[in-house]
Formats: sequence, structure tokens, C-alpha cells
Amino acid sequence: MATLWSSRYAQRTQRMGRSMIRELLELTTRPDIISFAGGLPAPELFPVARCQEAACRTLTEHGSTALQYGPTEGFLPLRQFICDRISRYGIAANPANVMITNGSQQALDLIGKLLLNPGDRVLVEEPTYLGALQAWNAYQAEYVSVPIDDDGLRTDLLESALRIGPKFMYVLPNFQNPGGTTLSESRRKALVRLSNKYGIPIVEDDPYGALRFEGEHIRPLVALDVDYQRSAGLNGHSFMEGNVIYLGTLSKTLAPGLRLGWVVAPFDVVEQFVMAKQGADLHTSNFTQMLAYEVIKDGFFDEHIREIRRVYRERRDLMLDAMERYFPEGCSWTRPAGGLFLWVRVPGWIDTAAMLPEAVEHCVAYVPGSAFYVNPLRGCNTMRLNFSNARPDQIETGIRRLGDLLKAKLAGQHTEVTAHA
Amino acid sequence: MATLWSSRYAQRTQRMGRSMIRELLELTTRPDIISFAGGLPAPELFPVARCQEAACRTLTEHGSTALQYGPTEGFLPLRQFICDRISRYGIAANPANVMITNGSQQALDLIGKLLLNPGDRVLVEEPTYLGALQAWNAYQAEYVSVPIDDDGLRTDLLESALRIGPKFMYVLPNFQNPGGTTLSESRRKALVRLSNKYGIPIVEDDPYGALRFEGEHIRPLVALDVDYQRSAGLNGHSFMEGNVIYLGTLSKTLAPGLRLGWVVAPFDVVEQFVMAKQGADLHTSNFTQMLAYEVIKDGFFDEHIREIRRVYRERRDLMLDAMERYFPEGCSWTRPAGGLFLWVRVPGWIDTAAMLPEAVEHCVAYVPGSAFYVNPLRGCNTMRLNFSNARPDQIETGIRRLGDLLKAKLAGQHTEVTAHA
Repeated sequence: MATLWSSRYAQRTQRMGRSMIRELLELTTRPDIISFAGGLPAPELFPVARCQEAACRTLTEHGSTALQYGPTEGFLPLRQFICDRISRYGIAANPANVMITNGSQQALDLIGKLLLNPGDRVLVEEPTYLGALQAWNAYQAEYVSVPIDDDGLRTDLLESALRIGPKFMYVLPNFQNPGGTTLSESRRKALVRLSNKYGIPIVEDDPYGALRFEGEHIRPLVALDVDYQRSAGLNGHSFMEGNVIYLGTLSKTLAPGLRLGWVVAPFDVVEQFVMAKQGADLHTSNFTQMLAYEVIKDGFFDEHIREIRRVYRERRDLMLDAMERYFPEGCSWTRPAGGLFLWVRVPGWIDTAAMLPEAVEHCVAYVPGSAFYVNPLRGCNTMRLNFSNARPDQIETGIRRLGDLLKAKLAGQHTEVTAHA
Repeated sequence: MATLWSSRYAQRTQRMGRSMIRELLELTTRPDIISFAGGLPAPELFPVARCQEAACRTLTEHGSTALQYGPTEGFLPLRQFICDRISRYGIAANPANVMITNGSQQALDLIGKLLLNPGDRVLVEEPTYLGALQAWNAYQAEYVSVPIDDDGLRTDLLESALRIGPKFMYVLPNFQNPGGTTLSESRRKALVRLSNKYGIPIVEDDPYGALRFEGEHIRPLVALDVDYQRSAGLNGHSFMEGNVIYLGTLSKTLAPGLRLGWVVAPFDVVEQFVMAKQGADLHTSNFTQMLAYEVIKDGFFDEHIREIRRVYRERRDLMLDAMERYFPEGCSWTRPAGGLFLWVRVPGWIDTAAMLPEAVEHCVAYVPGSAFYVNPLRGCNTMRLNFSNARPDQIETGIRRLGDLLKAKLAGQHTEVTAHA
């Protein structure tokens, strides 16, 4: 017998679906599969012992306060710590501009809740982060896609898209997921100028910004927006009256299992976020917030991030090197200056989604690029590879397996591909 | 200068507001105020040392797994533990029927996301849990209210309300928030019968069920629904095909600061919840789930809950006794058999919301009852008092202050009320 629930789902559920990436993650936990599919940090870098000490200290120092209900905005010292960190990037915020979320995924959900009426359009990069589409599909959003290239969002194509009147733009300027690309400074300036010209605000998602392997950090949109408004005589003194909501997270720099992210925004916007979060889950765990603060304070965070950068840069280099050696002609890929991902383009007639079961059979996995497109018929010959989570030997072997498979495809025949070599 | 965001909020935000209770909580953290306003558990009962040991053990035993991304459904041993617990109440569930949430507030939010189109009606008790209204207002819900009395929801008034066609009913059968009332067994059976007759499913919220001070536990709606369907030949063997979604939480029995609750539902409904939660925040912290499991396993939970019950019963008795002594004639109140709250009715012409600033001036606080009504013009002469969070001496003093204020009101003059006696 069917339950009374089955006929009662809201219209928005028609746009919701299980994340392909998460389904794949389940599939690829088989130990014999080398998975470049997930977006997982390297677990061997998690500071487990320091977290253990921090958990003990948190409960000794804060006692029952760590276990009681807490403020929706979040733990004040952590919010202050975030302000101090982002001031390095030229972002002038104070704790009243910061609300803690359950990872930045919750920030995306709350943005949908605050801003999206059914049918409202969001301008997104093409390709873009799958989780953002998933969050906003639940609010029946529509999308306007603007392509990226090696320098990030094609701002030369932006103006006609802005004229369509999206509610806001969603941009990942640093080491984009999935592209691995970084938005150049000149394009950032163009983007901010166009945002102000057309009156379309920006959500700047920066989960990977701290994980830069080389080159100089580029000023974030939230800071450039203040610069722009100041130079145009539009604004007074701080970003707090600006047009950018800035998102950050500890998932890639400390540990995703703690589920800690944050929103930085003008105070009146933060007030709206607080209302939305009250209805959504009251507040994020005090205990994990206090614990995280204990872990990252006193200079440890910088030291730890240096180590993550070193390891991930090494893995990126190994992957790029292996791709040079094993991938057939006709393939191309991005060379990310940071982050967790790179993006591969294979010859146009190869459908990476259709090829995935074969890849899994050969004990290697990736995410088919079409998952990151609003229109799933696009990007069929692309794939996202994660280089942070696999060990060096796995990178070598996995890329060889994938290269062999691609070569076999190109040879138009089922050449013997050895999975276990 | 206004930001570009201010004109862009979604229509639903017009129905969202900061929770009056949470505003009050901020107000009443002044140490000189005795607050019966919050819904906070007694922090001195939190098992801080055991949580500390559990945190250490979790990181020793699970290591980086506790800090990595985890499954949206939640930590399997915790889900199994929940199944074992609720089987005592006659609920036959397996872990596939359970999803972990960030407290039951998130379950309420996800229910809104899954089920509510704008304008859909929810049948609620009058008064009802404020947080549920707050969660569903964001989905532009409308409400059909049915009053409660000392035996809970007036099922004799239910039929005409069901004919209006609500999408589901929301019921707190045990030690209701805010009423402190418990739905009698005969009314539970009537409710389930009417649910099946009209084809309107039930959300059963049970945050306080384990905190029964006296009397026998009454079979939950989710189990009675299976009984009913079986007797009517409508269903096979288990609740898993039933019409009730059952919500639970560790917030009142372990610690709200961990933010752990759960949904128990038919498997196909859980699948929908998992999709909604993926978009909302990917998953709840593994670390807090593993830690909580370490704390509550091996018989500790029963022992701990016995202690909570003992303390809260004592405080309820103290409050009831003090009210007998200090409250003026014309006031009446509920005598809850468990939970955290009782409900007071004062003479009709006293507006408890208008009286609150005076009460705060006299260093005592409560929640005006109108906050729990869909129509805020109702319940103006009622208030909710929390007895779990105040120490015994505070209960005596706070109730005397409140009684003195009420007497002064009734005397129709500003009698000297001494706050510090």
C-alpha cells in the first residue's frame, strides 16, 4: 500500500535529485577503485590529535556552555577569527557581518531561501558547482549560464546575460569547482563594474582561496566592489554596504566532518540570514565551533594550510605529469594554481557519462562534466578529476588506467586494458 | 547607500521573523533575571566529563573518518541505536527508516521543503510549537488550528478541520510545547482513525517523550497507525508503510549544543528527506554523531534520563507548589506529567505580552502565550513557563515575583513589588 505521503510532495521536489557525485562516492568506496570523483580533502592531513586535545580543552574550559543552545549567529571568537583572516585579502568585516553555517552548502541553501522566488534566474558559470544548482533547484530557480575559459568567467559575454535580469550572480573566482580555473584580476574588475552598472549583486564562493600553490592571491570580488564604489563615489568606507555576499568554509582547510562554513555580508543581510537559519536549524553546534576555534588559533592554521598546499601541489603536479604521459592526443586539461580539481576535455565524440561504467570496471572513477552544467546535454566530453584525495601511487596508476581507456576508445576497439598493474 | 540585496528578498521572507523566544533569551541572560522563558535543559545535568571521554575515544577509534565527509543519512550505529530505543514504544523501524538531522528543527524545515507549496495548509494544535510555525512560514504555509485542552488536541473538533484539506497534521502528543499537555490514548486512537478516514497524514513530534515523570507511556501515533491499518486490513506488517512521520531529538535528553535529531519515516519518504538534506547541508557532522553514540551507548542513556526525570519532576513540583502559594485567584495552569513546560491562564483582561516588560523590570521572564498561536491576537492572557532550566531557589523566588506582579495587576494599582527579596 502506498502511504499518504507519496502524493503530497511539493512542486519543488520535482527539481530535486540525489547528487550524482554523492551516488558515485558510494559506488567508489570499493577499495580496489581509484576514485578521482569525490571532492574530498586528504584525510591523512586532518589534525586528529590536535582536534582531540581541542575537544578536551573545549569541554574543560567551556563546560556545559559547549553543550547548551547557542546564538544563531555563531560563536563570537570564531567569527572574530574569520574577520581577522579575511582582512588579509582586503575584506574589512567585523563579527556582526559574519554568520556561521553548516558548511557552505547551508549558506547556498539559505541564499535560495532568502532570495529566490520560483522562476527567478541565477547567473552561474558554465560549468559550475553542482551543489549550488542542487540547493537552488529546491527553490525552483532558473539559470543563465555564462561560459568559463582558462581565466575564469568570460566577462566579455556577461553583459547580454545581465540584461536578462538575473537576481544575482554566483561566481567561484579561485580554483573553481569544477574547472580549476581562476578569475583574472582584470576580469574581476570588469565583473564588479558590470555588477554595479546593471545593479545585479554577486555571491562570491571561496572554499579553496587559501589553497593557492603558486602566484599571488588576487583581491576578492567583495573587496574590489568596495574599491569600485569608493572610486565612483558611491560608497562610504567599508564593504559592509557592498553588493557581494562572500562565502567561506573550514571543509577544505580543516575538516569537512565538522560542517563549518560562514557567510560574510552587509549587516542587514546577515540579519536576514539569521532569521532564515533560526527556522532552518536554530544554530550550528557550539561544540564543533568552539573545537574548531581551539584547533586553528595561535598560528596553527597557517602552518597547517602550508602543509595542505605542499601536499596538494605535489599531487597536482603528479597528475599533470601522468596525464602528459598517459593521455592520448586530442585531450586537453586545465592547470589549476590551487584547489582540489582539474578539468579534462576529451575528443568531442566521447561521452564521459557513458564511459563511466567502463572506467569503474577498470577500477578508476571521475565525475562526468555534464553533471556541472545546467543543461545536462552540454559538457558531454568533459570530466572533473580530483587530485587531493588520492595517494601519489594511486594518481599514477589511476591516470594510466584512464589514459588506457581513452586510448582504447580512440582506437575504436576494446583493447585489453589492465586494471591491476 | 542601500545595497542591491535589500530589494531582492523572496516573497517568503515577509513571513519570516526572528523568534520572539530567542530575542527574549538574549534579553534574559542578565544574571539578575530569573527566566522561565527559554526552553533550555538544565546545563548542570549535561554529562560533560563523559562527553569529553567520548570525544577522545571517537577520534582515537574513528580517526580521520570522524572529520571527513560522511553519508547524508547519518552514522549507522546511531541510527541503529535510535531504532532500538523506539522499539520500546512499539515502533518497528530499521536504520533505512531513519535520517539524522541538525536537531528536530531541521526536520521541520525539511518537512516544509518536501511538502509545502505556497498556500498549503498545515493542521496544528492551538497553541503549538513556535519553531514549527517559523519553519513553515518560510514555505508560505497557511494553518488550520484546532484547540487543545488538558488531554491534548480536541479530536472532537478535528473532523471539520480535516475537511478543509490540510496537507498534513502536526501534533506533539507528549508534554506538549507550550501546553505541557499529553494526548490521551483514546484521542490518539481517534486521531489515527480520522487521519486514515480523511487521508491526511501526521507529523508526530516527540522531543520530550522520554521525560515522563509519572504514569505509563502511551503508545505513539506512529505505532497506533500501524495497529489501525492492520486491524482495518489496510496494511501488511510494519509502520514502514504508515502515514506518520515521527521526529525525535537528543536536545532534551543529552545536549542541544550537539544539534542532533532524527526523522523516522517510510523508506520512500526517507529517500526524499535525504535528497532535501543533500541540498540543504550535505550531512550532519559525523564527529558529533559518533561522539553522541559513544556517550549514550552501553546503558548510560537510560541511567542519565532517569536522573533528568528526577530533577525535572522536582522542579515541576516546586513550581506547581509555589504557584499554589503565590498566584492570585483567577489564574489556572496545566500539570504536565513530563517535559519542560507548563501553561498558565491569567484573568482575561491581563495581556501577558504587555505585562512582559514589567515582569523583566521585576527580574522575572516568561513567554507570552500569543507567541504560540497562529493568530497572535489569541491567547493574550496566557503564558508558558519553563521549569527545567531554573534552580529550585530561583523557581521559588521567580514565581513569587510573578505572583506579586499578577496580584498587583489584579489590585488594579501599581503596588510595590520587590524584585530582590
